Amino acid sequence: MKPWHGIISDEEQRAYRAAGFGRPSGIGKRPALLIIDVQYRTTGTQPLPFFEAIKEFPTSCGDVAWHAVDNIALLLAEFRQRGWPVLYPHVAPKVHSEGGRLAEKVPAIMNVAAHGYDFVKEVAPQPGDVMLPKKHPSAFFATALTSHLIDLQADTLIITGCSTSGCVRSSVVDAFSLNFKVLVPEDAVYDRSRVSHAVNLFDMAEKYADVAPTHEVLETLRKI
Amino acid sequence: MKPWHGIISDEEQRAYRAAGFGRPSGIGKRPALLIIDVQYRTTGTQPLPFFEAIKEFPTSCGDVAWHAVDNIALLLAEFRQRGWPVLYPHVAPKVHSEGGRLAEKVPAIMNVAAHGYDFVKEVAPQPGDVMLPKKHPSAFFATALTSHLIDLQADTLIITGCSTSGCVRSSVVDAFSLNFKVLVPEDAVYDRSRVSHAVNLFDMAEKYADVAPTHEVLETLRKI
Amino acid sequence: MKPWHGIISDEEQRAYRAAGFGRPSGIGKRPALLIIDVQYRTTGTQPLPFFEAIKEFPTSCGDVAWHAVDNIALLLAEFRQRGWPVLYPHVAPKVHSEGGRLAEKVPAIMNVAAHGYDFVKEVAPQPGDVMLPKKHPSAFFATALTSHLIDLQADTLIITGCSTSGCVRSSVVDAFSLNFKVLVPEDAVYDRSRVSHAVNLFDMAEKYADVAPTHEVLETLRKI
Amino acid sequence: MKPWHGIISDEEQRAYRAAGFGRPSGIGKRPALLIIDVQYRTTGTQPLPFFEAIKEFPTSCGDVAWHAVDNIALLLAEFRQRGWPVLYPHVAPKVHSEGGRLAEKVPAIMNVAAHGYDFVKEVAPQPGDVMLPKKHPSAFFATALTSHLIDLQADTLIITGCSTSGCVRSSVVDAFSLNFKVLVPEDAVYDRSRVSHAVNLFDMAEKYADVAPTHEVLETLRKI
Repeated sequence: MKPWHGIISDEEQRAYRAAGFGRPSGIGKRPALLIIDVQYRTTGTQPLPFFEAIKEFPTSCGDVAWHAVDNIALLLAEFRQRGWPVLYPHVAPKVHSEGGRLAEKVPAIMNVAAHGYDFVKEVAPQPGDVMLPKKHPSAFFATALTSHLIDLQADTLIITGCSTSGCVRSSVVDAFSLNFKVLVPEDAVYDRSRVSHAVNLFDMAEKYADVAPTHEVLETLRKI
Repeated sequence: MKPWHGIISDEEQRAYRAAGFGRPSGIGKRPALLIIDVQYRTTGTQPLPFFEAIKEFPTSCGDVAWHAVDNIALLLAEFRQRGWPVLYPHVAPKVHSEGGRLAEKVPAIMNVAAHGYDFVKEVAPQPGDVMLPKKHPSAFFATALTSHLIDLQADTLIITGCSTSGCVRSSVVDAFSLNFKVLVPEDAVYDRSRVSHAVNLFDMAEKYADVAPTHEVLETLRKI
Repeated sequence: MKPWHGIISDEEQRAYRAAGFGRPSGIGKRPALLIIDVQYRTTGTQPLPFFEAIKEFPTSCGDVAWHAVDNIALLLAEFRQRGWPVLYPHVAPKVHSEGGRLAEKVPAIMNVAAHGYDFVKEVAPQPGDVMLPKKHPSAFFATALTSHLIDLQADTLIITGCSTSGCVRSSVVDAFSLNFKVLVPEDAVYDRSRVSHAVNLFDMAEKYADVAPTHEVLETLRKI
Repeated sequence: MKPWHGIISDEEQRAYRAAGFGRPSGIGKRPALLIIDVQYRTTGTQPLPFFEAIKEFPTSCGDVAWHAVDNIALLLAEFRQRGWPVLYPHVAPKVHSEGGRLAEKVPAIMNVAAHGYDFVKEVAPQPGDVMLPKKHPSAFFATALTSHLIDLQADTLIITGCSTSGCVRSSVVDAFSLNFKVLVPEDAVYDRSRVSHAVNLFDMAEKYADVAPTHEVLETLRKI
């Protein structure tokens, strides 16, 4: 059952299908794993219900984050074992002169405690991973991500992390525009809104990426 | 009443509010109007219900498109009167060697009749407008849009057209990342899915843009 | 003998060498050929001395262009035979609303006769080649070149055409920044200034690309 | 007397002039100052002849750097007094996983002592300046420079620092492509090659920027 079941009506799904959207793009031969913004500022330091979690960090997504972390860990283990590249686009601490539009639109983002920027231990980077500090939604915007992926000769991106409707979505769109094949493991991305999470997965599935549960993505990867 | 009323629950809206999202970014002094993909391939040559409309063009959005065209026409009249710049990011006919990921994901897009690429008469470009053929979702991707906006010294973008969940959404994210102030007139953008339209407006309102009805956007513009 | 012999002194070459510049970057496994701006507006319709040639097109480079065309033809034949991709970044006719800084800096560029935009017959595109109209120096700027190269899984670019100090140089810098391996056949690029041509080749050889005569580039390609 | 006098022959200058290059682009109303890579790794900790200087840092440019620093200081004083924005694109320390093409082409760059990354005291940043770590030649590549300039509503860039043939040149080309007006104070940029410095100034003056001595740039700025 797709995550958008009961949210996007059958008729609307039929509308997209009639327009010819939603065909699979498949997988290439050289995958890379993106783990976006899986830092304590988005998960909290422990699993808690959303309205509890935001007392620690206003940007926390609550216990849905920890469910996704479990799935990211499965994907990461596969990538470690195969020696495939893992990249960590992540939020760098904000400084005042870099506020721009973000400071106006989401001022709370300017005031997150320092340990909120630490990577969640269960899926943390190792030496040799590519670290990509970023200050905008897309992992490609104002970063060297494209250069790294060309150097790695990656043709396929597995995009995980947070938030589904924010950095994941915009990174997926850019990856699609750059002609990478994109897979989004639907249970390895997370968001503070259940409905927005589901609808963004629907949008991505229809237009930009193949969306499937982690266990199916793992099966697909094992065929490479 | 916001377009996402009844789709994004009050609790989820409260979740975003608690996390500090959704503050207004306001308007600058030099607005530019983007009319994205308002071509007959997305509206049909006349207002028809969705499942009728797609018989003419599979990429048509049906009668919601024509409601938006009416509102875009109001905004366009204001821009023409004030002598403010109007830009037309639009879909250029596809050729085979440019397929890439798009050809796999949405093959129907490769086979649209030529007159589908004509601009909808009610809001069509005039000599002097900036024409931006594009082949990717964002109006900024692989186009000179940023260069034009810098040349025009624009600080604020009014983004209209189609589809809310596709080219509008991705252009809004890029405009935000580039530090333009962004206004999305909620009834001057359209989509083939009512739910996805609403949720994408919610996402944009929370994170990237000010979202309001056309009549409010017009009032705001008249204060410049 | 390097093209910059007698122009960049031995001592200056030693200065770069001492600083650690100029090591070879080598070749990968999937080359792509870029033929930049080889249109009659830069060659003239026949080989003529520079000051004769510019009577036909003010943007013509004179007979050095035709010498380069001969070498580009050799490279192109190799690419055709191997079935490797060939891409044509080229100047699209300018329209008034797209002038920007270029119209101020080089106004003559706005008034080139239409047949000046035709491709030089000896190295003209065939169906299936990637056509990339551009309006800025770099073949990557505001074009989908990066997307095409990722789709083609290219890892190495052979960059030819005109002018050495303009579009070739800036495309080479962007290709280097994107982590492509870059080869510049020194006698398959051309410029209206002999000295600027030579010094730009020196700069590229020291910092961004491997620079060698066409016959050496062909030998290198034949080893793939 | 232009810096390229005696290097680019009168005939070649006439060739460019005949082709219509080299008209002035002028200045706008909102200038921003870019000080690129003025760190001890490019100047040395004191003025020394080139072959002495590179014993401290292989990437040092010798005493020409210190002459340019004096001129940058004059420009910086003007910008400080007027309250205009100053931005510091600079080289961030390299880490192994970020090598890519650069590590192959200029391996010495990977091994610069930490204090080489410190800013030269005479023109060092103050709180409030925009800091832009970069890893590629152009100050625009994979950085948020464009976003900052749009936020600042800058229309004109004064580009200074090092090296003329490397980061300065490529930043100037990108700034031109983005439609900023660009001024290069010819004696506030520096390079390890005198000839390459001069020819790159010629190239920029013909195609992308207005090139003039610092005292003339200051006069132009004082008219704003």
